Amino acid sequence: MDTAKLIGLVAGFLTTVAFVPQVIKTWRSKSARDLSLVMFLLFCTGVFLWMIYGIMINELPVILWNIITLLLALIILLFKIRFKD
Amino acid sequence: MDTAKLIGLVAGFLTTVAFVPQVIKTWRSKSARDLSLVMFLLFCTGVFLWMIYGIMINELPVILWNIITLLLALIILLFKIRFKD
Repeated sequence: MDTAKLIGLVAGFLTTVAFVPQVIKTWRSKSARDLSLVMFLLFCTGVFLWMIYGIMINELPVILWNIITLLLALIILLFKIRFKD
Repeated sequence: MDTAKLIGLVAGFLTTVAFVPQVIKTWRSKSARDLSLVMFLLFCTGVFLWMIYGIMINELPVILWNIITLLLALIILLFKIRFKD
């Protein structure tokens, strides 16, 4: 594996797992007041389109990273809607 | 431009501009209690690596989207550190 591919892999891993601590924090605190609803609406839509893009260009890493990121971002979006300010 | 490229462009635009409403919200409220510090630390590191990846594979869209996303995510990270709980 070349260096660029390895860096891309680590980058994808980090920008995906980054959402895990936010899910845990919001679940524990049951507070999502400071999170922007518009941010997570736009972000989920964008990640969904990245997944579609990955399917169209047939790139499994793009598909997989974005499915996981979408799930995590959707959980945060649901928390934001559920845990009213 | 083919459909996949167009979808990739819209996806990149959405996952980047998504951070703008969060920057505005946090700036206005001066409150970042519900944002996860670890999320933004991991996310900024990941986006920085995406930018390096873009430079290595010489893909201008990857470089540009990630520079803008990195700036926005760094602003939120600074807000998180500055606006103490």
